[in-house]
Amino acid sequence: MQILILGAAGMVGRKLTERLMKDGGFGGRSITHAILHDIVEPEAPQNSPFSVSTLTSDFSLPGEAERLVASRPDVIFHLAAIVSGEAEADFEKGYRINLDGTRALFDAIRLVGDGYKPRVVFTSSIAVFGAPFPESIGDEFFLTPLTSYGTQKAIGELLLADYSRRGFFDGVGIRLPTICVRPGKPNKAASGFFSGIIREPLSGQEAVLPVPEDVCHSHASPRSAVNFLIHAATMDTAPLGARRSLAMPSVSVSVAEQIEALRRIAGDRVVARIRREPDPVIMGIVEGWPRRFDARRAESLGFKAEKSFDEIIRIHIEDELGGRFEA
Amino acid sequence: MQILILGAAGMVGRKLTERLMKDGGFGGRSITHAILHDIVEPEAPQNSPFSVSTLTSDFSLPGEAERLVASRPDVIFHLAAIVSGEAEADFEKGYRINLDGTRALFDAIRLVGDGYKPRVVFTSSIAVFGAPFPESIGDEFFLTPLTSYGTQKAIGELLLADYSRRGFFDGVGIRLPTICVRPGKPNKAASGFFSGIIREPLSGQEAVLPVPEDVCHSHASPRSAVNFLIHAATMDTAPLGARRSLAMPSVSVSVAEQIEALRRIAGDRVVARIRREPDPVIMGIVEGWPRRFDARRAESLGFKAEKSFDEIIRIHIEDELGGRFEA
Repeated sequence: MQILILGAAGMVGRKLTERLMKDGGFGGRSITHAILHDIVEPEAPQNSPFSVSTLTSDFSLPGEAERLVASRPDVIFHLAAIVSGEAEADFEKGYRINLDGTRALFDAIRLVGDGYKPRVVFTSSIAVFGAPFPESIGDEFFLTPLTSYGTQKAIGELLLADYSRRGFFDGVGIRLPTICVRPGKPNKAASGFFSGIIREPLSGQEAVLPVPEDVCHSHASPRSAVNFLIHAATMDTAPLGARRSLAMPSVSVSVAEQIEALRRIAGDRVVARIRREPDPVIMGIVEGWPRRFDARRAESLGFKAEKSFDEIIRIHIEDELGGRFEA
Repeated sequence: MQILILGAAGMVGRKLTERLMKDGGFGGRSITHAILHDIVEPEAPQNSPFSVSTLTSDFSLPGEAERLVASRPDVIFHLAAIVSGEAEADFEKGYRINLDGTRALFDAIRLVGDGYKPRVVFTSSIAVFGAPFPESIGDEFFLTPLTSYGTQKAIGELLLADYSRRGFFDGVGIRLPTICVRPGKPNKAASGFFSGIIREPLSGQEAVLPVPEDVCHSHASPRSAVNFLIHAATMDTAPLGARRSLAMPSVSVSVAEQIEALRRIAGDRVVARIRREPDPVIMGIVEGWPRRFDARRAESLGFKAEKSFDEIIRIHIEDELGGRFEA
């Protein structure tokens, strides 16, 4: 089996690559070759059980998507995107990459023809939803994005469904919740503090909490994100019918509940490293985000996330900190 | 006020033009100039109270959309589309006109800049919905089109909302129900019989009914379609918020109820001109269509349709038959 990962240099792309190298394949099939693609050079993994080629290009440029699918990969993970903040700041760039790039990829697959019909896993986002929300967002709630990024992801879902319906490929769209705890340095994403208030204190650093503790949000670990992708690549797509995109399961908790989980696992001294510093701008942004999903459909189709925020913290300590933290 | 109509040669475009010529304007403002555009030459109206220019081109070609908005029309009615059947038969043409053309128009408006912010009225369709449906489709039901045409319309709605949110124009999307009674000759649209079983018998012709009488569907008259467009062009858009597209009100009736209305208005001899000839292909297509809408939001915002199918028939007799029919 040959696979292609677009957006391989991003956090989820790297985690997926690591996991595939460890497992050697998925769904009972071995990977023989992987193409890792991104706009910046993806790290070529060491000691891979399969051959790997890395490609660096802008996949929205003419001919690039064709080049990526020319070797007819069996499974395509499309994780490439201009993120929310940048797509809002640079209107044309966001549409060029997130919409035109996605369509160029889908059309390149379509035009291979000759019976070629890969599995395409498309990472969408909960940004396809926009306030006002019901208490819990169900599987039939409509898409009313409030950002250009969310709009581009919603359009990607529609294209994925239509191209699948026409038989050009076999697509699955997964709407990722906020991935927590994100490894690495703090970044400037408005959602960054959800990870920061866990990650920094566990490493002996101070973290800033810019919102009130009653703010509620949905999370899944990086490990779950990779599990979602692999399940989407292997699942039976017949039960999806024409409805190809799914909100993923997640853990919905308030910030207060996040902090209590941290206290249970790491103690008061670690929790004391969280400093409250309300930021009206971030509070305003977070207010427009969905809080809770009823991901019944994804669960019934075998997608699994953590059951508690404690579990999410433990996974971070295990996967990123070698099982230890700064008490 | 200057207006632009894309798709001016179609049935709804012609009805809209006639009405605007009769009224001379809308929303308390006079029209000074109208640009009528279509892929085929739109009929230049006689005795117009405002100046009219007709333009014939493919608006998805580079430079064409820019040409259409160069004179900065205040209100743009975007009715142009490749219809459902053709968009399904010719995948690339459907996407080129319905998606790329719409985006080219929206981008041309965006790139005029300099404070230009027209009202844009976009005709969407109930084809944005796909089975399975609830008994009545509410305003928050999700879009799961089952045709490429419906996909392209749903994408148009998303773009309309995002471009409006960014302040490039002030958009309103209206999802038209089946327009009934369509004037003119029978056509090959799968929905054609809904009009045919009224129109042909009233003209002394035989009509074929290809589905069982318990089939239920939603209708509005051509006169209502024009009213929807004009209301969308003049309404206060503040209450729409970010949710710019609306299912229009309509009359939901079974075919049996359509026939009973015809009997009440025109008598048994007219009804006897309907010949039952079941067509499994048409029955299959019609099964996937939405039956009933709860168009509460559009109604609360002032959109009005007929209240009964009797009224729809009377409007046809009045507007198309000069008040007379073949008894």
